[in-house]
Amino acid sequence: MDLVDVLKDRKKGQEVTLEGWIRSNRSQKNFGFIDFYDGTSFETLQIVYDQDLENFDEISKYLIGSAVRVSGEIVESQGRQDIELKLKKIELIGECPGDYPLQAKGRPTREFLRDIAYLRPRTRLFQAVFKIRSLAASAIHEYFQSNNYVYVHTPLITTTDCEGSNQMFKITTFDMNDTPKDKDGNVDFSKDLFNKQTYITGSGQLHGEAFAMAFKKIYTFGPTFRTENSNTKTHANEFWMIEPEIAFCDLNGLMDIEEEMLKYVVKSVLDKANDEIVFLDKFVSNGLKEKLEKLVSSDFVRITHHDAIDILKKADIKFEFTPDYEGDIAKEHEKYITEYFNAPVFITNWPKDIKAWYMKVNEDGKTCAAVDLEVPGAGELMGGSQREIDMDVLNERIKECNVDASVIEWYLNLRKFGGCYHSGFGMGFERLIIYLTGVENIRDVIPFPRTPGNCLY
Amino acid sequence: MDLVDVLKDRKKGQEVTLEGWIRSNRSQKNFGFIDFYDGTSFETLQIVYDQDLENFDEISKYLIGSAVRVSGEIVESQGRQDIELKLKKIELIGECPGDYPLQAKGRPTREFLRDIAYLRPRTRLFQAVFKIRSLAASAIHEYFQSNNYVYVHTPLITTTDCEGSNQMFKITTFDMNDTPKDKDGNVDFSKDLFNKQTYITGSGQLHGEAFAMAFKKIYTFGPTFRTENSNTKTHANEFWMIEPEIAFCDLNGLMDIEEEMLKYVVKSVLDKANDEIVFLDKFVSNGLKEKLEKLVSSDFVRITHHDAIDILKKADIKFEFTPDYEGDIAKEHEKYITEYFNAPVFITNWPKDIKAWYMKVNEDGKTCAAVDLEVPGAGELMGGSQREIDMDVLNERIKECNVDASVIEWYLNLRKFGGCYHSGFGMGFERLIIYLTGVENIRDVIPFPRTPGNCLY
Repeated sequence: MDLVDVLKDRKKGQEVTLEGWIRSNRSQKNFGFIDFYDGTSFETLQIVYDQDLENFDEISKYLIGSAVRVSGEIVESQGRQDIELKLKKIELIGECPGDYPLQAKGRPTREFLRDIAYLRPRTRLFQAVFKIRSLAASAIHEYFQSNNYVYVHTPLITTTDCEGSNQMFKITTFDMNDTPKDKDGNVDFSKDLFNKQTYITGSGQLHGEAFAMAFKKIYTFGPTFRTENSNTKTHANEFWMIEPEIAFCDLNGLMDIEEEMLKYVVKSVLDKANDEIVFLDKFVSNGLKEKLEKLVSSDFVRITHHDAIDILKKADIKFEFTPDYEGDIAKEHEKYITEYFNAPVFITNWPKDIKAWYMKVNEDGKTCAAVDLEVPGAGELMGGSQREIDMDVLNERIKECNVDASVIEWYLNLRKFGGCYHSGFGMGFERLIIYLTGVENIRDVIPFPRTPGNCLY
Repeated sequence: MDLVDVLKDRKKGQEVTLEGWIRSNRSQKNFGFIDFYDGTSFETLQIVYDQDLENFDEISKYLIGSAVRVSGEIVESQGRQDIELKLKKIELIGECPGDYPLQAKGRPTREFLRDIAYLRPRTRLFQAVFKIRSLAASAIHEYFQSNNYVYVHTPLITTTDCEGSNQMFKITTFDMNDTPKDKDGNVDFSKDLFNKQTYITGSGQLHGEAFAMAFKKIYTFGPTFRTENSNTKTHANEFWMIEPEIAFCDLNGLMDIEEEMLKYVVKSVLDKANDEIVFLDKFVSNGLKEKLEKLVSSDFVRITHHDAIDILKKADIKFEFTPDYEGDIAKEHEKYITEYFNAPVFITNWPKDIKAWYMKVNEDGKTCAAVDLEVPGAGELMGGSQREIDMDVLNERIKECNVDASVIEWYLNLRKFGGCYHSGFGMGFERLIIYLTGVENIRDVIPFPRTPGNCLY
């Protein structure tokens, strides 16, 4: 039996047996209280035991973290909750010694907990974060599946990449101290497992486009890798991405989908993880619940990059970076724009020179049909574009951006064989979880984070 | 508008506009038929056009694979289907030249299609396979989420692995022709991104166990890698795995879960992909539908490895491999056993010497609490075990199996801090898809398969 089922029924008089762990144990002379959880619900159960139990003395010494099996009756409670368990029997399944790092005294710092990533999911904070991560992933699948998208597992091992191979990890089966060499003394990749040098991917977009040309609406949801050597709160070398791609869809259609999907996911998490959100609102990020509820009911604004720069130029603020019609939008700008509209903002039609080669160049020849979604309190949450399908323009952009055309010949063929206008976006899953939980550091929303110099466990 | 919605309503008199592709185009003197699809449904739509349309001659020359926008009225049909589209307007969005590799004449072989993996999802066969792949993935999430499991993204980049690092790909950010060297002339991994040598994982189980000790019921679902240099129908170097792990669960409880989950997923696919299953039954694997329906209603058998060997030894068959109480069960044995019982069979309590170090050793000291699920027509579909938690036994097994204890110290700590009996299993997702589709070769159930010597696209 799971605790979550007991808490759903809340049936007084019910006899239950549960297995789980002790979060705290306070005993007095004649009775004691155990705060019990099994991980299936955020709410815990108070267990009351008294000296009538033959092993009362033993129970009162059970330490935090111990695994136990408890049986008893659900009764009305005088405490915080409306019900509690009147203990009839308890068995110690796995004890937990006094040097357990997750003691109740003193709240351990998040930095400390990062070093024991294999234990931290047992804490209240990480129970909330990782449950929300799971529910958000589930809601994403639900949204796309219920709208007839096909989930595509694009390959991780690849020779193609739209972000440039210098940002990709190389993989090999060779002993790197003893690699076969060709006649020029270079590593002979023809002897490696795939007979060539291969990488792990930074995006499934190009492969996703191939499937959109078959199924119209597809999405990917899988791990992605970047070799970036940057130690910030928002960068990790391994993270999960969602990359939907939709045939017969232009930039406006894409924004409709992004807005609908985001609202669906946020609403689903609010519905299913209320206890977790209330906890995070109280202890981690005041106003979290209101922020999320507001997003669900807000209308997203749509403005061009040009108009966004206009607003920034007129702003009564001294920015560190001067707003520039040809330039990127800095974090401080994102913040100003979302506060200015007090709503999520789609910024469209970016200068093509600061965007990727596969984005559709607009008629002005200067901007491209790209869109970033800026969300209050989170900054950029999604980035997408309509894709270039004019072969002349595309070939020119490939040259301009120094992309190796030979490895993407197959991709270009997608335009040749029944191509159509189509659009897609990418959402970094961890960015979403940071937004949903109010937890600021990406290291605290990934079960076992990988960042430069850090690959524990 | 998606074709799937039109086909759901089947409302005669409805005016619709659809965008999609031409699967075939047959024209006669005064009229013609287009077989139209947009990928959102397996069923296609017949479009009838006649010479009253001003571009009749042009339409009749539209080639297979072309992308079009069509408008017209849904009317009753005299053909195979009950409805068809009476065309009022058609626009060519993207033409498809005559050298399109997917022509109607002659059925292209699967080997040929593997070499154009970016086009093959447009064929009927791969529309069926990859739609079922998507639906099965969705059903797996549904099953676990509705039963309060937490979905955990275990890391792909790792220094820990339960299968042994010689089976893992190494990853690096170094230019492999110019790696930094230490004073002994070896590659200096302390200068690599993670300051040590790292791998991409062959299993998320150990990390999953850490989360089961926090959430009781968890599952992983993600890509997995093996360097195996074997060219068989069932091996790929990149594949997806589902690895649930359940605290307070013994081997019998695990089998209950495996059976329930498998039935749920198969039933869901039968419900949602009837057209695809009927097609595969007819053209790929006769009896597929009956096989799947039978699985849903069957009771899975549970026997020990010892009893299975007894049955094999008594069999009136000359096996290539002699059944052995201390040995593995060969493919021919799996086949015999499932046919003998005419049902899926759980084989439990395997000789410990042929199983992994983390599996619980039984009281006899010779067997372990492992279980393989053998399914008629597919062989081994899942493999699981109760995990060893006795530290003395575990340390001995680690020594016997030459596991580097230093990299799994954290894992051993899970037993120290409130450990409990727990179990888990792994299911290769592609094995499931092979079973569900009747398509035999793993290369044909993965969007872009990676096998030795093959890493296209």
